[in-house]
Amino acid sequence: MSTIGILGGGQLGRMLALAGHPLGHSFVVLTPDAGAPAAPVAETIVAAYDDRAALEALAARCDVVTYEFENVPPVAVDVLRDLVPVRPGGLALEVASDRVREKTLFGELGIPTVPYAAVDAARDMDAAVRYAGLPAVLKTRRLGYDGKGQRVLRRSGDVDGAFTGLGAVPLILEGFVDFRRELSIVAVRGLDGATAFYPLVENRHEGGILRFTRAPAPNLEPEHQAKAEGYATALLEALDYVGVLALELFDDGVELLANEIAPRVHNSGHWTLEGAETSQFENHLRAITGAPLGSCRARGESAMINLIGDAPDPLAIQAVPGAHLHLYGKTPRPGRKLGHVTVTASDASTLDARVERL
Amino acid sequence: MSTIGILGGGQLGRMLALAGHPLGHSFVVLTPDAGAPAAPVAETIVAAYDDRAALEALAARCDVVTYEFENVPPVAVDVLRDLVPVRPGGLALEVASDRVREKTLFGELGIPTVPYAAVDAARDMDAAVRYAGLPAVLKTRRLGYDGKGQRVLRRSGDVDGAFTGLGAVPLILEGFVDFRRELSIVAVRGLDGATAFYPLVENRHEGGILRFTRAPAPNLEPEHQAKAEGYATALLEALDYVGVLALELFDDGVELLANEIAPRVHNSGHWTLEGAETSQFENHLRAITGAPLGSCRARGESAMINLIGDAPDPLAIQAVPGAHLHLYGKTPRPGRKLGHVTVTASDASTLDARVERL
Repeated sequence: MSTIGILGGGQLGRMLALAGHPLGHSFVVLTPDAGAPAAPVAETIVAAYDDRAALEALAARCDVVTYEFENVPPVAVDVLRDLVPVRPGGLALEVASDRVREKTLFGELGIPTVPYAAVDAARDMDAAVRYAGLPAVLKTRRLGYDGKGQRVLRRSGDVDGAFTGLGAVPLILEGFVDFRRELSIVAVRGLDGATAFYPLVENRHEGGILRFTRAPAPNLEPEHQAKAEGYATALLEALDYVGVLALELFDDGVELLANEIAPRVHNSGHWTLEGAETSQFENHLRAITGAPLGSCRARGESAMINLIGDAPDPLAIQAVPGAHLHLYGKTPRPGRKLGHVTVTASDASTLDARVERL
Repeated sequence: MSTIGILGGGQLGRMLALAGHPLGHSFVVLTPDAGAPAAPVAETIVAAYDDRAALEALAARCDVVTYEFENVPPVAVDVLRDLVPVRPGGLALEVASDRVREKTLFGELGIPTVPYAAVDAARDMDAAVRYAGLPAVLKTRRLGYDGKGQRVLRRSGDVDGAFTGLGAVPLILEGFVDFRRELSIVAVRGLDGATAFYPLVENRHEGGILRFTRAPAPNLEPEHQAKAEGYATALLEALDYVGVLALELFDDGVELLANEIAPRVHNSGHWTLEGAETSQFENHLRAITGAPLGSCRARGESAMINLIGDAPDPLAIQAVPGAHLHLYGKTPRPGRKLGHVTVTASDASTLDARVERL
């Protein structure tokens, strides 16, 4: 039974705390927002993430510290790691918050990706386009999420001005892959190095935001699960990782191409709350507290639907058999993730009918 | 999305709050104990249950009030019900907190029980023993739980002094039933009168405290589920009940005999957290907030083991596949319920092996 610190008090912190109270853990979140989603289920320290005194206060209260987003300011990890175990460690954060380092690591580990090139200045653009081809996606190396900080370059006319259009910060140009679908795998590694893997899931995005996950991914090539687990294992070991890590992959019909990692619990793993033997939130906590990992086995067929922007109708959702509502306690706002619904069923056609109703 | 008040901040209140945050609800518990198990996941009003000002403050904060124990002081319901909906209503509390009224209601509804007799004075004892026979169990009419406030009378020599031995308060003498096993059914009734029923489970007690639940109950007579649902339906309707109600039954190999009701979520329903489509905690909240009820279907085979007295070893428990730990944040003390483990498996023999390991 540990006191667990979390950097960030959003829905991921909230769901970690909800999963962790039954395990006997206590939670302290550091968040700049007094009304953060995690606040009703955890103690809160309201401060900026780079507030040294607040970070020291967090470390003094906790046995271990984790985080719910990858763009943690480096100073936070620097302050914390001398005082308290930080899991996953700083290396995972460094890699995951820099798209070029991330892609470089994929390459070093023999994990296929789309062609890409770093763009540190406007003068790098032409060479990058020649290498990655067009269409391509130009993204900020850092601080991008949910489709923000990126633009698609379709024609050579789109290239000019694109660098300054994204703020003249370090960028990456990624070749456009005509993928059939996006998959992801949520993996977990314990303090003792044991690993476990949830089944691959299929994700659908709209406007750069995840809308829908189907678990396990239907119509999977038989070798893809083993391949994805191999990639995830290589990453977990290279990063000496402890906790849950998500790996997003493009399935182009032949190969799996790594897109990005998230060094944390992940939206594409929310289905595990009711759809797996042990949820990703519980397994993350088991890992960082040194407990044995729980089974990642799927319980039947599941789907996850994000509730975005408009206030959902909880009664209509609860009227659908197998639907489980997860609200985050947020005020509705366009594009905001307000909650999600996990839907479970014992077979795919029942699941599809339930998803259709929602 | 409601603000829900709970009288009592024990493990049941804690698990209600943990189940309710994902539904978007907020929780305020009234408890005399500032360190109550529910405190980390709910706002708390620390006061006695009969503190009028505190009850008024609770009512002012909440859309609906419920409770986690049946021995709520009548003044609490009197104060609250003029200010806020109290669900389940006061009638259920009155009946469930008085073993004679409870047995009388069973009789009125045609639900079989053991023979019993009210004992209001020492002079009633002889007639009660003649009617109920020996051996028999002498219990306080009110405020008994977990085997407290009762004694077994085996011989006529045990009768003398038994009335004063239990405090010279109103008692009930219940004929001893040589039952094969204890079963229970957890039922739920919505605000619209809809009902749903979990499968019958088998319970094992030691020292008057529930130790183990097996769900669904193995080797069930085919008609027993329907019979139990019929009894529960009659009770829910007679009490105009809203929420979860548990009915404990003796299975004597032929008949089901009603033992007692609990007008609340119940220890014998804790297996539903992972073992049923919708947990008893979520269904209680759905009912009292006017939401549609969730499915009570079992997900495979389950067991529930109470953790009593000594501090459990969380790592050893988490090492067992299918085991889910639920700690209540309490300090160990002899006879105290500190938590429980639910164990799930897809078949009975796997479940038995897992339970054996625990």
